[in-house]
Amino acid sequence: MLTLARKALPSKYSSFRVFGRGLGLPPAESIDQLPRPASQSLSFSSYPGDEDDDDVGRPKTALVLGSSGALGSAVSHYLSQTVGMKVLGADVRELPGELNDSTLGDLTTRLVQGVDFYLQDTKSGLDAIVCASGGWQGDPAPPLEGSKDDIEKGALAYAETIQDMLRMNLDPVLATGYLAQQYMGPNGLLVVIGATAAILPTPGMLGYGVSKAGAHHFVQTMGAMTGQGLESKSIRRQGRKTRQYFPNLDTLHVVGILPSTIDTPSNRKADPEANFDQWTKPLDIAKEIGSWVQKTPLRPHSGSLVKVYTNRDRSGAGFELVR
Amino acid sequence: MLTLARKALPSKYSSFRVFGRGLGLPPAESIDQLPRPASQSLSFSSYPGDEDDDDVGRPKTALVLGSSGALGSAVSHYLSQTVGMKVLGADVRELPGELNDSTLGDLTTRLVQGVDFYLQDTKSGLDAIVCASGGWQGDPAPPLEGSKDDIEKGALAYAETIQDMLRMNLDPVLATGYLAQQYMGPNGLLVVIGATAAILPTPGMLGYGVSKAGAHHFVQTMGAMTGQGLESKSIRRQGRKTRQYFPNLDTLHVVGILPSTIDTPSNRKADPEANFDQWTKPLDIAKEIGSWVQKTPLRPHSGSLVKVYTNRDRSGAGFELVR
Repeated sequence: MLTLARKALPSKYSSFRVFGRGLGLPPAESIDQLPRPASQSLSFSSYPGDEDDDDVGRPKTALVLGSSGALGSAVSHYLSQTVGMKVLGADVRELPGELNDSTLGDLTTRLVQGVDFYLQDTKSGLDAIVCASGGWQGDPAPPLEGSKDDIEKGALAYAETIQDMLRMNLDPVLATGYLAQQYMGPNGLLVVIGATAAILPTPGMLGYGVSKAGAHHFVQTMGAMTGQGLESKSIRRQGRKTRQYFPNLDTLHVVGILPSTIDTPSNRKADPEANFDQWTKPLDIAKEIGSWVQKTPLRPHSGSLVKVYTNRDRSGAGFELVR
Repeated sequence: MLTLARKALPSKYSSFRVFGRGLGLPPAESIDQLPRPASQSLSFSSYPGDEDDDDVGRPKTALVLGSSGALGSAVSHYLSQTVGMKVLGADVRELPGELNDSTLGDLTTRLVQGVDFYLQDTKSGLDAIVCASGGWQGDPAPPLEGSKDDIEKGALAYAETIQDMLRMNLDPVLATGYLAQQYMGPNGLLVVIGATAAILPTPGMLGYGVSKAGAHHFVQTMGAMTGQGLESKSIRRQGRKTRQYFPNLDTLHVVGILPSTIDTPSNRKADPEANFDQWTKPLDIAKEIGSWVQKTPLRPHSGSLVKVYTNRDRSGAGFELVR
């Protein structure tokens, strides 16, 4: 299996790692003997589905981007253990000491290679894609009355924060568009994690806001490309033109989930004085996605943005359409 | 002068070119003798202002990004010849045969270097920044029933179109945020060209739509960082926190202009059968910007998005607030 992987992947992705549990795959393996390490490695892991459920035919399969994160792992485990899906988890990992100079093209290509490897040439093999990758950085403090050098350094800090946010929050989302087109089966579900904050202006976190606003536009546009949207006649006509290539998009639902603060270890560390009861639990989001996967009529219309409200009495979360 | 420029610019920007008319600068010069050409060159040009106007003190100065384009050159000439400003024009030019692998950090740094060079260490030297850079690409046709190779090639085509759109339509906009913070004088005006299309979903042009939606969010967020916005109390509080570093932002207006189709030679070539009377003339946009530069009370509130309506009787254009 490892040999197959090594052959299947072009050498420039020399640190591409494949690991899995279940599905007959070997445990984590790293193809790192090749000479030129890439700036990022993309690792895949799989969670066994409930092979004994009553479904006829193959078990349902989900791809979770960012499956190692607090939200992504909650979603992966819930879909695997409670919903009984096979889950393919993908993570972009920074290699220590390497610059992050990978492009959207690299990311999309590597995801295609990984999905293709795991689905073993089964087209229409995914029933759900959840993009739970992401992160937060605020604007850096600007140089004060700086020298020319300080101002140039400030320019780089300003730009790199924005670029990081776009890479972390927008690039994985954009990549899912191609994956959905190529690998989504009938009645598919594509879920993107946006941000309630980015519905309004985001002073103090410009890059974060722009990246999430871009993700929201992606949801609305991909949604309009499916047959399940609610847009105007002319936009639906434009969408139909696009999906003539992809009949699987006819029945696809694309939905954005917009949390405020998610209750994760890193958010608790960053704001230890906060009232964690007001933060959204990853499991509540996982449960909602699970119900959408299982019951098509429960899904919001395609292209919709859904805000998460956290019930302060610890009784879970509510989901309300905001756009 | 050339020696100064060569000294001031790090060698990795070996194809940085500086050229100017007026302002006592030499004609176009190319610093291309250095060994490693960058993927893009950023060229600066200047238009002489009306030095004989009645204004007390220095003439007003504008920076126009994308000053060689159809819209950018109309704006540059109008601000220079009719409004009487000094205009510094900046253009990102692709070097033939080079891959576009420059980053937002490169672009922002090079713009800072160029502005710094032209303003000659005068802080608060800009009265207006207009970002007229941009372009349009639709989604590429997807691979049909492709082999694994075709699907991978398709992934790259899909991703590179989006990446190009983000680079052309969003990166220059993001860079202006830092320029405005560092170099804008009192009562400044920052104008970004958005797109009416991107207010709604954009099936068939996903990358274009995402890049313009990002530009719109930038306008709203930068607007909320100034003292001239109309946001809620909590967002204005957040904005105040940011602009404590930049008193010049107190009186800055950030406005997005959202055209539909602009009447440019390349758009005419792409759609020769269209009724060009319905397309917005670059001069009409230039005139509106000119009136905002000259008369502060005519400016829309900071953070606003303004749609351009083209009068079909060839009597010019109207501008209406959409957000």
